[in-house]
Amino acid sequence: MDPVDELRALVPRVVTDPDAVQAYRFDEAYLAPAGQPCAVVLAERTADVVATLRWATAHRVPVVPRGAGTGLSGGAAAVDGGVVLSLARMTAIRELDADNLLAVVEPGVLNADVSRAAEEYGLFYPPDPSSFEISTIGGNVATNAGGLRCVKYGVTRDSVLGLEVVLADGRTVRTGGRTVKHVAGYDLTRLFVGSEGTLGVVTEATLRLRPRPATPPVTFVATFPTLAGAGAAVAGILRTGGAPSLLELLDNTSINLIEDHHRMDLDRTAAALVVGQSDAPTAPADVARMTDACTRHGAVDVVTTDDRAETEMLLAARRAHHGAVTAAGATLIDDVGVPPARLPDLLTGIEAVAAEYGVVIATVGHAGDGNVHPTVIFPPNDPAARDRAVRAAEAVCHLAVRLGGTITGEHGVGSVKRDWLAAELDPDTRAVHHAIKAALDPLGILNPGKAI
Amino acid sequence: MDPVDELRALVPRVVTDPDAVQAYRFDEAYLAPAGQPCAVVLAERTADVVATLRWATAHRVPVVPRGAGTGLSGGAAAVDGGVVLSLARMTAIRELDADNLLAVVEPGVLNADVSRAAEEYGLFYPPDPSSFEISTIGGNVATNAGGLRCVKYGVTRDSVLGLEVVLADGRTVRTGGRTVKHVAGYDLTRLFVGSEGTLGVVTEATLRLRPRPATPPVTFVATFPTLAGAGAAVAGILRTGGAPSLLELLDNTSINLIEDHHRMDLDRTAAALVVGQSDAPTAPADVARMTDACTRHGAVDVVTTDDRAETEMLLAARRAHHGAVTAAGATLIDDVGVPPARLPDLLTGIEAVAAEYGVVIATVGHAGDGNVHPTVIFPPNDPAARDRAVRAAEAVCHLAVRLGGTITGEHGVGSVKRDWLAAELDPDTRAVHHAIKAALDPLGILNPGKAI
Ligand SMILES: Cc1cc2nc3c(=O)[nH]c(=O)nc-3n(C[C@H](O)[C@H](O)[C@H](O)COP(=O)(O)OP(=O)(O)OC[C@H]3O[C@@H](n4cnc5c(N)ncnc54)[C@H](O)[C@@H]3O)c2cc1C
Ligand SMILES: Cc1cc2nc3c(=O)[nH]c(=O)nc-3n(C[C@H](O)[C@H](O)[C@H](O)COP(=O)(O)OP(=O)(O)OC[C@H]3O[C@@H](n4cnc5c(N)ncnc54)[C@H](O)[C@@H]3O)c2cc1C
Repeated sequence: MDPVDELRALVPRVVTDPDAVQAYRFDEAYLAPAGQPCAVVLAERTADVVATLRWATAHRVPVVPRGAGTGLSGGAAAVDGGVVLSLARMTAIRELDADNLLAVVEPGVLNADVSRAAEEYGLFYPPDPSSFEISTIGGNVATNAGGLRCVKYGVTRDSVLGLEVVLADGRTVRTGGRTVKHVAGYDLTRLFVGSEGTLGVVTEATLRLRPRPATPPVTFVATFPTLAGAGAAVAGILRTGGAPSLLELLDNTSINLIEDHHRMDLDRTAAALVVGQSDAPTAPADVARMTDACTRHGAVDVVTTDDRAETEMLLAARRAHHGAVTAAGATLIDDVGVPPARLPDLLTGIEAVAAEYGVVIATVGHAGDGNVHPTVIFPPNDPAARDRAVRAAEAVCHLAVRLGGTITGEHGVGSVKRDWLAAELDPDTRAVHHAIKAALDPLGILNPGKAI
Repeated sequence: MDPVDELRALVPRVVTDPDAVQAYRFDEAYLAPAGQPCAVVLAERTADVVATLRWATAHRVPVVPRGAGTGLSGGAAAVDGGVVLSLARMTAIRELDADNLLAVVEPGVLNADVSRAAEEYGLFYPPDPSSFEISTIGGNVATNAGGLRCVKYGVTRDSVLGLEVVLADGRTVRTGGRTVKHVAGYDLTRLFVGSEGTLGVVTEATLRLRPRPATPPVTFVATFPTLAGAGAAVAGILRTGGAPSLLELLDNTSINLIEDHHRMDLDRTAAALVVGQSDAPTAPADVARMTDACTRHGAVDVVTTDDRAETEMLLAARRAHHGAVTAAGATLIDDVGVPPARLPDLLTGIEAVAAEYGVVIATVGHAGDGNVHPTVIFPPNDPAARDRAVRAAEAVCHLAVRLGGTITGEHGVGSVKRDWLAAELDPDTRAVHHAIKAALDPLGILNPGKAI
């Protein structure tokens, strides 16, 4: 029997129609090449995942796990002749245990749906990638997704208590548990978090919830004439201990692209905007200390509010970034991290890279974590420009590593950054990655060519 | 040449004198059997660790890494014919980068010395095991140590940014980095954290520091007539979001042993004391909400203070626990975790276990994390009593697992709990542990018989 027919007999939903398959080939890193899969499995229960992986192991067929396909590193890009295993239909919230501040969810649940379910108990799920309305918990776990609130509450890793994971050969393992502290055996939970679908398929996650802040947040935007001033203000805010619940930065190129797109009366001459927030009961005092740090480091204009509508206005520029840059051309969204005090060096260096490669780079990001997204913008349908964009992104990654940082803070290596990993990890350290991969997936079934 | 003579030629400090060696055979879990090592290496630099492990691999000699030997699970217990590799002399703080809120330290640095060094920059290192003055960062990392502040700031795992680790064959790897966010490759940092010296030897750690709270903490002690009330109060405090920076519990047996030992005018009839603290600028209001929760759940006596000397008095009972229980007999200090709302069931169940096995169990611990230490007390030099104590501890571990919890929240599996792991981890999950161990240490050189 043809292997795909065999697969059809094992799991209820197998898609092979070429048009339907097309929708599962790429993620949002559309520069990443994608192969032609032999089938897409739409899993509806863990048993479907087990059956698919047993079948894949028997037939030596590669399997690409997939959530919502919003990834920005090509992690979910299909591989030739492989199966795309979509978890997007496993959308049940199996349990919400408010007394123990946890939720047990299937991998296809959207991030925002977890917080919505938690809200009625006065709780929330902290990790909030900008894609929170469209990305899945499984994808968030597999990429260790970050977000705006993470400067205070930590990344996905810090909110996962336990996982159910199906291995390449179809065995099911359970990691962690339902307790915050847990040291029985190795920390497999955090080995699977961020492993980009290369070590196992997440079929259930036990998530940690937290009490929702009881008071409205206070928000500020500060305008800086110099990058050095903005960077020093960010470092200063982190040192004061005011615990910002959001601390973002937009560079001059971003400001101008947003202003082109939306007309928000932003200062087009500013070197950077810093946007911050506190959700603590002491927010007014905390934000006053933060804006003091901004003024001390040369901010020319500082606006603060605790009004709901005004808060949305102050956050609007940050939120408009993705639309504004993607409207400006083809984009390559990079994702580097540095120790926070090195932000000015990073931002200045990015300007130099843009000049050297003749590309536009608009940088935005989670300044409080030292994690920013230099977005390279280039004319579509111009292979030479596209090539320069890729080389510029690579140069930015090398720059981040030289500054003591990383080539990826939250989007992952995927297929896009795999060749650049060597800039950050020495050969012996990479060898450990490959040894772990071989130990868990000796046949290389899961997401080959990605992450490590 | 005799292998030990060869070792002597490779590293400067090798101890073989039996009396001197004796001091390196046990940790603080003195019930754990310890073998007779052929030598103790006192490493002074990473090169000594590399040389020792290369030699050990060549001669197939087991190596037990060791910090201060304060472990409570037999993790550092020597094995017959092996080498004990002490990191206690590697005590340099290599770097304290206050701008980037990090410290780079050698593994033998005492936990308290990191916070002391950070203090002059207005910073601190959050994880604070009660052993903070006597345990090493290497040991803390290898056990993923917790402590009193961890209910707010997370455990050791949450404060380690990166590691230098020497593998069993002498290769040196670097994990993580100097950034808070980092997803380039698998999360090896957290794979090594908590691996109890079985996967590699930590020779350097990059630690995350945080700004010291600017205001004095507010502390309370609440006395409860019932365990159910104390448990409900703890769960209620966690739900309110007041972010306690400490939330501990002492049971009736503990109260009486402490009172026997110290005369603190504790209520000998109380079912439990709950001790809490907030270090936030909103501490007075936060603690008022916490004590409200206590009163609502039946606390008969609640004392609150922000005075420094009175704070020490309120914490004195908690601090006196270890001395009081060890004065009362031989002890077996257990370490289980449950989801916080299951604490009353756990504590009631522990009383039943104590009755069933005819032992005394005094329970104390980090209630806010659902992590407590039921300490079995039994007459020394009585093999039958000792046996009952071990069986009672095992029964408590099974109870915790039945309540959705874990057999170890912070002390680790070591050698003491290895046979009990099967109660918590299913065979496929354990097999993954063994596959990872085999991938990193195929000859089983590092700490055989421990942790997994
Ligand atoms: C507008 C926009 C804004 C964004 N903002 C952020 C942000 O702020 N922070 C951030 O971190 N990211 C952000 N992203 C990137 C992306 O949303 C995240 O990486 C997200 O976690 C991906 O989730 P997904 O469900 O779309 O996963 P996919 O893209 O489908 O997959 C991502 C990776 O996870 C693997 N995977 C998916 N599901 C599973 C599973 N169940 N088991 C095992 N492996 C699995 C895939 O193989 C792939 O390697 C943004 C993307 C967009 C388009
Ligand atoms: C009075 C008292 C109170 C305590 N309170 C707490 C508490 O509140 N919270 C808590 O978590 N623990 C507590 N402990 C237990 C103990 O202090 C911790 O487990 C501590 O982390 C052990 O550190 P150490 O340096 O003594 O390590 P050791 O006991 O020497 O070793 C512990 C484990 O780590 C391994 N190891 C040590 N150094 C390295 C290294 N450099 N590389 C690789 N592996 C290594 C050893 O092989 C062993 O498996 C307490 C102990 C005592 C005696």
